[in-house]
Amino acid sequence: MCELMGMSANVPTDICFSFKGLRQRGGQTGPHKDGWGVAFYDNKGVCIFKDPQPSYESEIAQLISNYPIKSKAVIAHVRQANRGRIGMENTHPFSRELWGRNWTYAHNGQLSNYRNLPVTRFMPVGTTDSERAFCFLLSQIEQRFPRPPKNRKTVFNFIKRQVQELTKLGVFNMLLSDGEYVLAYCTTKLQWITRRAPFGVARLSDIDVDIDFAKETTMHDVVTVIATEPLTDNENWHKMQPGESQLFRFGEPI
Amino acid sequence: MCELMGMSANVPTDICFSFKGLRQRGGQTGPHKDGWGVAFYDNKGVCIFKDPQPSYESEIAQLISNYPIKSKAVIAHVRQANRGRIGMENTHPFSRELWGRNWTYAHNGQLSNYRNLPVTRFMPVGTTDSERAFCFLLSQIEQRFPRPPKNRKTVFNFIKRQVQELTKLGVFNMLLSDGEYVLAYCTTKLQWITRRAPFGVARLSDIDVDIDFAKETTMHDVVTVIATEPLTDNENWHKMQPGESQLFRFGEPI
Repeated sequence: MCELMGMSANVPTDICFSFKGLRQRGGQTGPHKDGWGVAFYDNKGVCIFKDPQPSYESEIAQLISNYPIKSKAVIAHVRQANRGRIGMENTHPFSRELWGRNWTYAHNGQLSNYRNLPVTRFMPVGTTDSERAFCFLLSQIEQRFPRPPKNRKTVFNFIKRQVQELTKLGVFNMLLSDGEYVLAYCTTKLQWITRRAPFGVARLSDIDVDIDFAKETTMHDVVTVIATEPLTDNENWHKMQPGESQLFRFGEPI
Repeated sequence: MCELMGMSANVPTDICFSFKGLRQRGGQTGPHKDGWGVAFYDNKGVCIFKDPQPSYESEIAQLISNYPIKSKAVIAHVRQANRGRIGMENTHPFSRELWGRNWTYAHNGQLSNYRNLPVTRFMPVGTTDSERAFCFLLSQIEQRFPRPPKNRKTVFNFIKRQVQELTKLGVFNMLLSDGEYVLAYCTTKLQWITRRAPFGVARLSDIDVDIDFAKETTMHDVVTVIATEPLTDNENWHKMQPGESQLFRFGEPI
């Protein structure tokens, strides 16, 4: 399968600490060595680093794990290929523009009978079940909302219902963002933690690294991190249940 | 204004040498310090590194200039902002999916009255004249070709005619690619060079770096580099004329 990681924050925040942990799972502490990617939003813009190499060995991933790129919304993925060959076109996160916003998405799981999922103008570039499902979701959104609704939360409620259709085809853990909202959907494995004052020390599970967030933050910071498996071993993560979804905005679960 | 750089090659080729030169123009030998970006195609997939920082100072740009990412089609840009604030959403290259292919694009120049350029479903995320023009071109393509024609060269001939409309609004030097073809359009400044056997030594204009391509290539390699101004000072670049366009595929001008 794969592993997901996401972040939602109320101030631009780097993900170096969490990514150091995730990166290990791409070929070192985990078998997810078939590519990796991270999408960083900067207001409405997005930059997506992706690489079909194992994150554990990738020089680009090494840079990302040390270079503090600050963002309020991040989606990351390390891949263990099942549907679709190893290659850039099949490397998550995927991205499309809708309504003048960049939508990004990553998936963990495996779907059957995904090739017939109806898509309109959003066409897959690669051959994964994941990208097909993303194009399906965007196609559904655009058909339901030819114009963007004033309250974008409405769209995410609609997406949750569409994802329920996808879960009939198999395992579908997902992160999806428009740069402001981050939606997490769990069918098997997904956990999250919201950090806020008073901040403490966190210790990664996958590598001997810890951080004192009290030294890195202000008392107003609110930062949620979402991951397939907890990235730290000294904090309490919220374990999502099958069929559970959670929307985040500026760090807060809403 | 800005500077453009592109590459088309018949074998996956890195652009470290050329990018080392371009990077200098982003705040050191040139004033284009308002962001930079590079799109690397890997078959149908694409990875776009972009950063609103000056390329001369960017750690990511430093990595790119030393890390050999191999590609058959590359589009790069260093920005000197005129329309649109400095920020990720206004940083080139821009990208959209059409017909299950990733289209990428970068622009050098400045347009007037661009806000009314008609767009359909391709909407700008940022506020530049450049991205609006890109969305206009893709909208025109999709209206003219609801389905992709068998010969994609037809599309590029159509694009050239649409670009002629854009040139009525101002300066429009452009690089545009679907991952296989690279189209260069010149209204003021754009030059290109095709390197093939027998290869020789090339020397950058902007920094004291040279390379012996004979040691880096095979006799079958064909690599074209396109740039606003020649990147080397010991080779003959083809200087494009106002209104001239050139399509490249797998390194060859066609």
